[in-house]
Amino acid sequence: MKYIGLIGYGCVGQGFYEILKRKYPEVKVQHIIVKDKNKKRPAGLPISFDVEEVIYNPLITIIAEAIDDSKAALIYALKILEQGKTLVTANKKMVAENLPILVEYTRKYGGRIFYEAAVAGSIPVIQTIKDYYKSEEIESISGILNGSTNYILTLMSEQGFNYEEALIKAQLQGFAESDPTLDVEGFDAVNKLTILIYEAFGQYIAPQNISTTGITEITLKDLARAKSESKKIKLIARADFQDGQLSMSVKPEIIGADNPLFQVDFEYNSVVINGKFSGIQQLTGKGAGSLPTGLAVVSDVVRERAYQAAISGFDENLYVSQE
Amino acid sequence: MKYIGLIGYGCVGQGFYEILKRKYPEVKVQHIIVKDKNKKRPAGLPISFDVEEVIYNPLITIIAEAIDDSKAALIYALKILEQGKTLVTANKKMVAENLPILVEYTRKYGGRIFYEAAVAGSIPVIQTIKDYYKSEEIESISGILNGSTNYILTLMSEQGFNYEEALIKAQLQGFAESDPTLDVEGFDAVNKLTILIYEAFGQYIAPQNISTTGITEITLKDLARAKSESKKIKLIARADFQDGQLSMSVKPEIIGADNPLFQVDFEYNSVVINGKFSGIQQLTGKGAGSLPTGLAVVSDVVRERAYQAAISGFDENLYVSQE
Repeated sequence: MKYIGLIGYGCVGQGFYEILKRKYPEVKVQHIIVKDKNKKRPAGLPISFDVEEVIYNPLITIIAEAIDDSKAALIYALKILEQGKTLVTANKKMVAENLPILVEYTRKYGGRIFYEAAVAGSIPVIQTIKDYYKSEEIESISGILNGSTNYILTLMSEQGFNYEEALIKAQLQGFAESDPTLDVEGFDAVNKLTILIYEAFGQYIAPQNISTTGITEITLKDLARAKSESKKIKLIARADFQDGQLSMSVKPEIIGADNPLFQVDFEYNSVVINGKFSGIQQLTGKGAGSLPTGLAVVSDVVRERAYQAAISGFDENLYVSQE
Repeated sequence: MKYIGLIGYGCVGQGFYEILKRKYPEVKVQHIIVKDKNKKRPAGLPISFDVEEVIYNPLITIIAEAIDDSKAALIYALKILEQGKTLVTANKKMVAENLPILVEYTRKYGGRIFYEAAVAGSIPVIQTIKDYYKSEEIESISGILNGSTNYILTLMSEQGFNYEEALIKAQLQGFAESDPTLDVEGFDAVNKLTILIYEAFGQYIAPQNISTTGITEITLKDLARAKSESKKIKLIARADFQDGQLSMSVKPEIIGADNPLFQVDFEYNSVVINGKFSGIQQLTGKGAGSLPTGLAVVSDVVRERAYQAAISGFDENLYVSQE
């Protein structure tokens, strides 16, 4: 039987491990790679400090990566893919900035890469686009892709917090990135938009090539004025495909109740997909958090594990998850 | 190369065929089985009147069924599964009433069955539960699962139509079942709830064992009173799993803006899934219509075709739909 490797045991890594142990006790995680040797961790974890132990272990064919450092994550990613293994990553910055080389490596070495957890936390939007919308002709995507800024805007607009208070509350709740400028300047949202555009339209537009405005200039007065007109200000990422041309942006928009994103408040994320055949569809859910994001990693790992089993023929029922 | 068979060329069958031809021109539909020999149809269709031509053709391994008659659909379904073939059906009544025997047949003869199009039209809720929520512990599901009644209630509440006018408008728009009592008495919604419960909780509760109330008793006065309190009346199907016990119902409920189903109007359907790990997630989209429902059939057929290719090894890239 093959094993799973895990790199990183922070918020997402812990959520992943907890769900995997609970739902799939038969799946063995061979190593959990961590950096800090002095940190207290629960006893009995298969902790290791040497990342090469998972990358080069021939019994490990799927490696989940959930570390914060996007530069280290890229180095690990390329080594993993070079081994023809499957990488499941939650690292949106690493994926968004490096999709072309990651894809090139999968083609060259036969490995695979999945990143459901990198976009919109628990919402299974990546797999849904891959599996379902590949038969669609997607005309536009818009979304609230950053839970932290949406939480801040909701507290400011609905509960009278000022910006600084709201940001602190978002950090205390664990919704904010470790560097909050990634959230409030729109950089986190634009990373996710780059990934969504790649999945939905098959084009790679690097984050730095997408016009990006954050929420730091939004005042309580702006929010009050919008509210007085029954509107809301939301940080919206969007991409439109018209007449063969893609246009896209991340910026605060004033929207009314006719926009499906209007009622998406607090830390929720939401993606609206407009397709030629199915019209408007919307997927809403928690965009952050240990268990919600961990679930997204679990889903990629378990699907890939079943796929590997199916094509190697040893137990195709693993794939046939119907019953 | 293997072929696809299609039984039925009404609203859903036509939508299916149009999308399949446009997006997957390489996929050959060997026969389209229809009943009425005198109906005018476009030239060049591979029409046949003998359903056994698809059921017993060894080159056809996947058969899409989109007919109205649930009794005939069951007869075909059992014959198809008896051949060890894959059935993709849009027939919610047939599926809801016969899930146990359908599943028994798949186990006995090795065939497979998929029914994305049977629940909530274009919303990929069935596959999302199978693929993603199998790693969840679902605590409750609630939904607006019938576009016709939601359309009628929206017209009555928001646009001053009376019940009869609104029903006629729903029929003219093509949202209503050919027998509208299936919609307005809640029978269509309860069929879909039976299927959702089976997928989410692994239990089969026959539609007739679920308490079901339709919308025929709702008056304009009821709707006006709800509106005056900033509420809406919606036909809601729900299932809760608490302390090992399932409880469920289909009935009109008075809901406020704090319910995620509040803003789901007109022909839209929506499913809210509450999971232990991911919290509240919501999927919203068109619940009916030729292309939206046809897309759901296409997605099942194409996924299954790729799966058959992967396990038979002739072209696993068909399954690896990533690039």
